[in-house]
Amino acid sequence: MGRETAAVSGPQLILASASPRRFEILSRLTASYRVIVADVDESPHNDERPVDYVRRLAEAKARTVAGPATVVIGADTSVVVDDEILRKPTDRDDAREMLQRLRARSHDVISGVAVLATAADSTERIAVGHEVSEVHVDDLSEARIEWYVATGEPDDKAGSYGLQGSGGLFADRVTGSVSNVIGLPLGLLDSLMTELGFDVVATEWATS
Amino acid sequence: MGRETAAVSGPQLILASASPRRFEILSRLTASYRVIVADVDESPHNDERPVDYVRRLAEAKARTVAGPATVVIGADTSVVVDDEILRKPTDRDDAREMLQRLRARSHDVISGVAVLATAADSTERIAVGHEVSEVHVDDLSEARIEWYVATGEPDDKAGSYGLQGSGGLFADRVTGSVSNVIGLPLGLLDSLMTELGFDVVATEWATS
Repeated sequence: MGRETAAVSGPQLILASASPRRFEILSRLTASYRVIVADVDESPHNDERPVDYVRRLAEAKARTVAGPATVVIGADTSVVVDDEILRKPTDRDDAREMLQRLRARSHDVISGVAVLATAADSTERIAVGHEVSEVHVDDLSEARIEWYVATGEPDDKAGSYGLQGSGGLFADRVTGSVSNVIGLPLGLLDSLMTELGFDVVATEWATS
Repeated sequence: MGRETAAVSGPQLILASASPRRFEILSRLTASYRVIVADVDESPHNDERPVDYVRRLAEAKARTVAGPATVVIGADTSVVVDDEILRKPTDRDDAREMLQRLRARSHDVISGVAVLATAADSTERIAVGHEVSEVHVDDLSEARIEWYVATGEPDDKAGSYGLQGSGGLFADRVTGSVSNVIGLPLGLLDSLMTELGFDVVATEWATS
């Protein structure tokens, strides 16, 4: 569609995330976007459900960096086991504990995504959604956990593993969206964009 | 385990595949391997079942590059829809046809993997297996198919899509092993290695 439009370019697309995985995923669809890291308080509220938590954070991240003539993507991904949210490990002992907790069973990975469109006159429209995937982790030996923690890969990952990296050796069986497990569910992003009248691959995003 | 062994190094690990995706996947586990491209006849036999086909090709690729004191990984991945094997597209029209055939439904991705261990005295041991994952493709519009074919991504991929690339926009819902869909099922590789007495991450593979 974008190819047929006149040379008037659309809004600027902004990814409100510091995650290199989200950057990699969005780059599969378009090169015309900026990354602006959103610094938000990530503490869960009392008795907040995981789904509410990731949706709230996604929206908060998007709102933090919004401005006139922009479309901002905010996202948050959590690993959820027995209704408890696992975030990034605080240190390698914490990573070991999370991996021991996740092994030989399935857990959920939940991402919240918010797309916030702000017009030139500052009128805002927002679409928010979430996606749930199930991941099964093999029965990890202590030696495997030690090997994996030593790779350093768990350090910056929710739940202490990365499906796209060495973690794919044992956290590879998914039911649902794969991009969701990595951190940015593409089908959901596509739907939210459509809801607001954009097409993530065909809209002519401003490049400056 | 490897860390406790003496300085005698193990066999050389060889990946018998030209696929950059398999290279990327194996590199998540070890840097100590060589790639030797196996040139085998990929024509299916008459009435050959997809599972038999990918296992036969995996073994043929491994046998082509085997030599003393090596462990060779051979693999073949096919997309299977209505019992028909889809290979790489012959051209972009062929890619369009495959994508039209795959859209708005599920299909299977089947990889055969062969691990062939040859001792210094040329004694051979082999372990062969296969893995099946289900992938659902969204209902693609003609515009989306045109966009995707124009990216060039389908050109060198079985079934004309790559889950790890832009294809993740519409071929993202998996039931089963994700690394299998990309081209090298890690859990199966791990099991086949164990069967032959190796540990893909802990064995001290020869580096020369």
